[in-house]
Amino acid sequence: MIRTDECLDDLQNGLFIIQKKDGFKFGVDAVLLADFAKTAKSVNTLDLCTGTGIVPLLLTEKTDTLNIFGLEIQKDIAEMAARSIEYNNLDDRVHITEGDLKNAADIYGKGRFDKITCNPPYMKCGAGLQNDADTKSVSRHEIMCTLDDVLRVSRELLISKGRFFMVHRASRLADILCTMRKYGIEPKRLRLIHPSPEKAPNLVLVEGMKDGGEELKILPPLYVYGSDGNYSDEINMIYGR
Amino acid sequence: MIRTDECLDDLQNGLFIIQKKDGFKFGVDAVLLADFAKTAKSVNTLDLCTGTGIVPLLLTEKTDTLNIFGLEIQKDIAEMAARSIEYNNLDDRVHITEGDLKNAADIYGKGRFDKITCNPPYMKCGAGLQNDADTKSVSRHEIMCTLDDVLRVSRELLISKGRFFMVHRASRLADILCTMRKYGIEPKRLRLIHPSPEKAPNLVLVEGMKDGGEELKILPPLYVYGSDGNYSDEINMIYGR
Repeated sequence: MIRTDECLDDLQNGLFIIQKKDGFKFGVDAVLLADFAKTAKSVNTLDLCTGTGIVPLLLTEKTDTLNIFGLEIQKDIAEMAARSIEYNNLDDRVHITEGDLKNAADIYGKGRFDKITCNPPYMKCGAGLQNDADTKSVSRHEIMCTLDDVLRVSRELLISKGRFFMVHRASRLADILCTMRKYGIEPKRLRLIHPSPEKAPNLVLVEGMKDGGEELKILPPLYVYGSDGNYSDEINMIYGR
Repeated sequence: MIRTDECLDDLQNGLFIIQKKDGFKFGVDAVLLADFAKTAKSVNTLDLCTGTGIVPLLLTEKTDTLNIFGLEIQKDIAEMAARSIEYNNLDDRVHITEGDLKNAADIYGKGRFDKITCNPPYMKCGAGLQNDADTKSVSRHEIMCTLDDVLRVSRELLISKGRFFMVHRASRLADILCTMRKYGIEPKRLRLIHPSPEKAPNLVLVEGMKDGGEELKILPPLYVYGSDGNYSDEINMIYGR
């Protein structure tokens, strides 16, 4: 079930994930997103840009949502994610589909989900280094989908008052909030992630509500490392350590 | 020079300010705004919604800007601010005008300023308690001007690449960033103000550049009080204590 160019990583919560040995590995951002998104009750959740399936996997443990879907455009990665779900015997709850996010409303139907999560590529095309068309580039750059695509499609897929959860670069904050507003997904909750208490935030968690009223709650900062250089208590709690 | 319903407050930096005994007093937000705005060089600075003139007064001490203008719509407050400037012998550097921000381009001329500061009313009309038409209400609510007015007028008044500095409620962050974008004043620098390290931010400092490129830098958080309940070292430094 595990290929020679893959490895099986222990998520420390009873679950395991298959990843490419030299490919894009999930990071703290995916873990924080799953934790941030666990608050809202959901019957049907969709994870866009699901990659290895890390967010759906974590959501099976953090929520009691019965139907969790994951959409991934890269064929080999989608197939690997499906094997991870199978390995964990979660086929009844998690369904991975290979497909283009831009066609998601055709794949799933409009207004199908009460919750969407997304850990999208962070970098605009043209920014940062790019190796054409390889897996890492697709995961990191807006080659296959842009922030605008993510929000436009999420508006179609969500029911009214449905929740949207995303993790992204803090430097894209203006883009994020303005694009959410553009598609009527009102920013409701926001949390900045700092590497440590003395450092500027590098990531942002944001929750929006389709057709929600205007009132943004900014949460206290989340520090990944404490001033002592060890993981903060909150991060240890999120990782279940 | 000081009326019976007024008091003279010591700014602890060699300057004094006249305030109404029972009126709207300047807060930490105005002090933080002046400090945040000191970084950019300026020949002609305008402070919108200047109130008691606190931001222009502090800018005379924190910058070497030669021409600082303050615009205030409330006649008695504008007159009091002008007396504060006179009291400090700053008539040659600071010029207070009574007038409506919505006519500011007629008053000063378009493209007149390289820096604008603003500590506007925070609350939308209809939100919070309001006493009709009194001074405190005008200072706190968007009765006389809205966030949209502030940004629209600032775009007219600024030169290209001119800087815009504002302090506002953190809960209005989506409004702030989207309205700045709407008027081509690109958010460039942002800092959240927390009452203490454990608490969520309640205020936000934001810097924009007219016709600037897209790249937002989020600074480390600013804590007003430390965990020990005393003013933080940074606040003491900003206050010059």
